[in-house]
Amino acid sequence: MFDNPYKDHTVINALMRGGILPVEIRERLYDQWGDLGYVACYDCLEGRSSLCSKPPVRKFLSRIAAFFGADAAEHTFGCRAAQFAVLRAVREFCDMDGNYADIIVTDPNSHYSTNIAAEMNSFRVVEFPHDGYPTYTFPAEAYAEQIEKVKADTGKLPALAVVTHADPYYGNIAPVEDIGKICQDKGVPLMVNAAYTGGVAPVNMKEIGASFLTLSAHKSMMSLAPLGYVATTYEWTDRLFSTSRTVGSWTGRSFGKKIPNIFGCSVGGLPLISGMFSFPFVEKRIKNWDEELTKTNDFADKLEDIGDIMLLGQRPHRHHLLHFETPRFWELSKNKREKGFFIAKFMIRNGIVGLHRGMSKHVKMSVYGLTDDERKKVLDAFRELAGVLDA
Amino acid sequence: MFDNPYKDHTVINALMRGGILPVEIRERLYDQWGDLGYVACYDCLEGRSSLCSKPPVRKFLSRIAAFFGADAAEHTFGCRAAQFAVLRAVREFCDMDGNYADIIVTDPNSHYSTNIAAEMNSFRVVEFPHDGYPTYTFPAEAYAEQIEKVKADTGKLPALAVVTHADPYYGNIAPVEDIGKICQDKGVPLMVNAAYTGGVAPVNMKEIGASFLTLSAHKSMMSLAPLGYVATTYEWTDRLFSTSRTVGSWTGRSFGKKIPNIFGCSVGGLPLISGMFSFPFVEKRIKNWDEELTKTNDFADKLEDIGDIMLLGQRPHRHHLLHFETPRFWELSKNKREKGFFIAKFMIRNGIVGLHRGMSKHVKMSVYGLTDDERKKVLDAFRELAGVLDA
Repeated sequence: MFDNPYKDHTVINALMRGGILPVEIRERLYDQWGDLGYVACYDCLEGRSSLCSKPPVRKFLSRIAAFFGADAAEHTFGCRAAQFAVLRAVREFCDMDGNYADIIVTDPNSHYSTNIAAEMNSFRVVEFPHDGYPTYTFPAEAYAEQIEKVKADTGKLPALAVVTHADPYYGNIAPVEDIGKICQDKGVPLMVNAAYTGGVAPVNMKEIGASFLTLSAHKSMMSLAPLGYVATTYEWTDRLFSTSRTVGSWTGRSFGKKIPNIFGCSVGGLPLISGMFSFPFVEKRIKNWDEELTKTNDFADKLEDIGDIMLLGQRPHRHHLLHFETPRFWELSKNKREKGFFIAKFMIRNGIVGLHRGMSKHVKMSVYGLTDDERKKVLDAFRELAGVLDA
Repeated sequence: MFDNPYKDHTVINALMRGGILPVEIRERLYDQWGDLGYVACYDCLEGRSSLCSKPPVRKFLSRIAAFFGADAAEHTFGCRAAQFAVLRAVREFCDMDGNYADIIVTDPNSHYSTNIAAEMNSFRVVEFPHDGYPTYTFPAEAYAEQIEKVKADTGKLPALAVVTHADPYYGNIAPVEDIGKICQDKGVPLMVNAAYTGGVAPVNMKEIGASFLTLSAHKSMMSLAPLGYVATTYEWTDRLFSTSRTVGSWTGRSFGKKIPNIFGCSVGGLPLISGMFSFPFVEKRIKNWDEELTKTNDFADKLEDIGDIMLLGQRPHRHHLLHFETPRFWELSKNKREKGFFIAKFMIRNGIVGLHRGMSKHVKMSVYGLTDDERKKVLDAFRELAGVLDA
């Protein structure tokens, strides 16, 4: 058994900050539910975790659906499995209906899991351009253009449009409402990948006009990994969550409660219980989103004040993921033995973990949910690194 | 937050017994690694959990591979995702190579996740017969016959043969070594689903002659859910674990370390750490397998001694999953208000959990890993239920 070297560190990894479990739930979670794998399955009667009433998974998923403006939701093995479920449902639809091409349109800042889910389901991904350094944004109209382009090239509509609500590179918020309108006008279903937003910021798929919403509980909903959710509207519920149609050739066995798009049953286990315990905290914390953004932008301003450091992406920033260009730190690390590892290691020595090792020209981080004292500690560490702590 | 009503109960659910975490690891697991979702990702340099050296996931997976006689292994979201990975790799191979039909051959006692994985990858499943009540076994030669039948019908070989090492209905052990020989002779790759055996009994895929082994950590390897492993030989490693080939149409992004068959990266999180902590206990406990089987058969004999109760499947039994036909309990429950729920509820009142609610004609259970006192407690509860405790 090995210990966690970062157990008492302040975490500033943007992937991790939204997934920290509330302290209030941990003891009871582990004491009560931590003894075995199938811990959510004692009272399973129907052979699918999402139908369980004890623990109340079924009710919980209705609450998840309502919270995000959806008609139905299932839990999944993370957001990547949620996206896979959508892509597989769209693949089936696309194969049945002749009006759609084997193409999905995505933004150029998509998370890799979107591209992998497309690859797994034999879709070609077409991207449109962003506006490059230093903002990397794109207008909603890019979707209209790209959809028309696919139509002109293939005579068919793309099977799906995907937008990454907050992107994993710059933390830009995409103009999802306008994209939703465009996709509805054009007759192309829209999937919003809200892995970085759902659970920290308000997200409502009905207001966006999306057909699918994919969520990461371990990224943004204070949960253990792996856990995610896939949510949809009533129009797609039967297709996305269609049950197994296979019949055993000799036994005649069928598995009528199982949903192939989510592997029959997504089991759940301790991550699911953690998500259920955390959810009231998630519901509460998204109300502080504007305040968090103020703190995030204030932090970014102060980091830039050190000099030779610049925030990339939207300004003011509308998400907690911060990506700085840091020529100052690169200069510093060039002469250090640890080279690109220098900054991450310096931070760890100061009780702060989460910077990507090997990177020094750029710093990606987050101060989401930190206390004032913790944010000051992080800022002071960067200042000390830059040699301006007492400036 | 809701409590676990069965926290201090003796668990006799056959799904669960192999997944109970060693008491010795729990405190350190939760204290050190239980604070957030991406807890295994602090020192990820390559973007795939299985390549991490801190925590030593890469080394651990080599150890898993060696333990099961494989050349390579990856962790997955449970055995269902392991089977999916195999079926997807075989699908790709099958599409490229014209010698295989869109058909897989499985035993008639396969776990539903095999059939779902086949359905997800558009394979038709052909089953062969078992010998019915009360043993439900089949000979290895059934595979030879079925493969020949597919060949006669389609002019091609089935793309894959699947055998469920211990089946989920009766706990029968399939003649995997003989099946392995037949499949090698016929030139059909074999997948052994060892969800119920790998981690409790000795399993070596090289000795079997299998191309793929799928494992459930939360079922049989003392781990949190969801976690599994897919293991293979060098012949299939590059195909099963082939990395992403997609390229962003505008950005030119590629994701060269990601493995599409396992969703790019299977994350891991706390379940993976639990599996790593537990593994030394797993390595140790499989040495007691023969002793466990003796205890299991002894328990079955004593339960049958109550009268009007009969063990189904192989005798002596070679797996810890016990399936009894229990007309005696059916008679008892008919006149009870709780009907089919009566037996499960009676057991719960006696501090024993894990019988399927609603069933009384049949009882599925396991005493794997119980102490002598615990097995006696379970037996006494059944005796009391039957009114023969003092007999």
